Amino acid sequence: MRPRRSTARVNIDRVSEASRRRRRDAVAVEEPLEIRIVTAAGEEHQVAVTMRTPGDDFGLTAGFLFSEGLLTGRPDVADLRYCADVETQEYNIVTVHLSETAHFDPAELSRNFYTTSSCGVCGKASLEAIEIQGCAPIPSEGPTVTQEIVRSLPEALRSRQPVFERTGGLHAAGLFDLRGELQLLREDVGRHNALDKVIGDRFLGGALPLGDAVLAVSGRASFEIMQKALAAGIPIVVAVGAPSSLAVDVAKEFGMTLAGFAKPTGFNIYTGRHRVQ
Amino acid sequence: MRPRRSTARVNIDRVSEASRRRRRDAVAVEEPLEIRIVTAAGEEHQVAVTMRTPGDDFGLTAGFLFSEGLLTGRPDVADLRYCADVETQEYNIVTVHLSETAHFDPAELSRNFYTTSSCGVCGKASLEAIEIQGCAPIPSEGPTVTQEIVRSLPEALRSRQPVFERTGGLHAAGLFDLRGELQLLREDVGRHNALDKVIGDRFLGGALPLGDAVLAVSGRASFEIMQKALAAGIPIVVAVGAPSSLAVDVAKEFGMTLAGFAKPTGFNIYTGRHRVQ
Repeated sequence: MRPRRSTARVNIDRVSEASRRRRRDAVAVEEPLEIRIVTAAGEEHQVAVTMRTPGDDFGLTAGFLFSEGLLTGRPDVADLRYCADVETQEYNIVTVHLSETAHFDPAELSRNFYTTSSCGVCGKASLEAIEIQGCAPIPSEGPTVTQEIVRSLPEALRSRQPVFERTGGLHAAGLFDLRGELQLLREDVGRHNALDKVIGDRFLGGALPLGDAVLAVSGRASFEIMQKALAAGIPIVVAVGAPSSLAVDVAKEFGMTLAGFAKPTGFNIYTGRHRVQ
Repeated sequence: MRPRRSTARVNIDRVSEASRRRRRDAVAVEEPLEIRIVTAAGEEHQVAVTMRTPGDDFGLTAGFLFSEGLLTGRPDVADLRYCADVETQEYNIVTVHLSETAHFDPAELSRNFYTTSSCGVCGKASLEAIEIQGCAPIPSEGPTVTQEIVRSLPEALRSRQPVFERTGGLHAAGLFDLRGELQLLREDVGRHNALDKVIGDRFLGGALPLGDAVLAVSGRASFEIMQKALAAGIPIVVAVGAPSSLAVDVAKEFGMTLAGFAKPTGFNIYTGRHRVQ
């Protein structure tokens, strides 16, 4: 029994115009991770199952629970463990043991935070749900970065993705400082998971909020990416891909800087332009 | 009140090495869609909220419920409607009214189908969950396609994505016949949603299973993509991006053909190589 690997070897046919050859290739591993919470009183609750690439499972768990509002700070966590009740388990269940001081309401589990009981679910309701969850706007003064740094991030991210290099199949989330130096990079088949791993690492290290950080993501910027970044207090988000309308709305509403289509030759700034010099 | 648009206009700063210009740009719309089921007896259940690009909401709803095993066939559906209880609603709630003959167990809603009660959640358990859901393997004889057709699909998909063209921000799922002719294309900010829209269209038309179809997806092939394709009976899946390990496992276990990294110059076949000539 040992933690699962992040890549697997498979037999493939490589087909090109001129040839068809049998060979071995690497694919990114995707496996379910079940997240459970055990209260200080010993009650166990199944929280979620996410399809993820094994590795940094404790960070993923902590980051997921924090950005869903189920953990509020490092003191909430007494212990994090792989479930080891049976011999066949393959490190795919993580249990968070809450401390005595943690506030946890099981009723929150059955309530999807976008959902409203009336007939008015919409982007605006989603923005309000973030406020209800307790996310404060980013201070408008905040840090700034140069446009040279923003342009450098896609390549800095890409060149440090070891599993992508082998499989071509992983999203990445990278935390950079204001000089563009990479502080932390995580990969996953799911782009939300990669970000949860980054945020969870800092959560477990007691380093939140991340008021002086720049987040770079390899894919697109969705509502959920921006919601997680906001929960972690990150003021500047740079996406290699496109942002969605609701990602732009979140960024605008909460004072975040959002750049998209980042390339070495340029990028678009959607909101918070004063933070890019 | 009218159905929401799939693109929105925003002000951006376009930054390049030499200049910084203010201009208008289009982004893909992302909005929550809430899916509700009303039984023939009149009981209403909230099923899910998904972040999607407006458009083909009835197809998305039907495809989602079908691939989750909550609808089994067209006769289960008596009616599909936008919720219109209040004036402020913006076409973001779809209610499925079940027929008298539909079997629906509300207990299924609270049960995530990957989740097991024991400490053994893993890829194998996920595969077993698909069998429990009632998905049969694809017949091994099945249809075949030429490698020229597989190589043509990425461009055929890309050239028919009207919203991507304007926003660069949408996933696509396309259904092709065995000669490589596009039958149906759907776009969405979520790749699972794009596929649900395709499958839901065919579900509502009473055209499932899709035993003679080739599915092409603009992104990566994950477990969930393969599970949905299998539920619809699609024998051949071609991804522009990389497959995950569990996608390969699903394809192998259920006799599907899975190709990845599809480009005009070539592609990889992971499973079901006998269907590519």
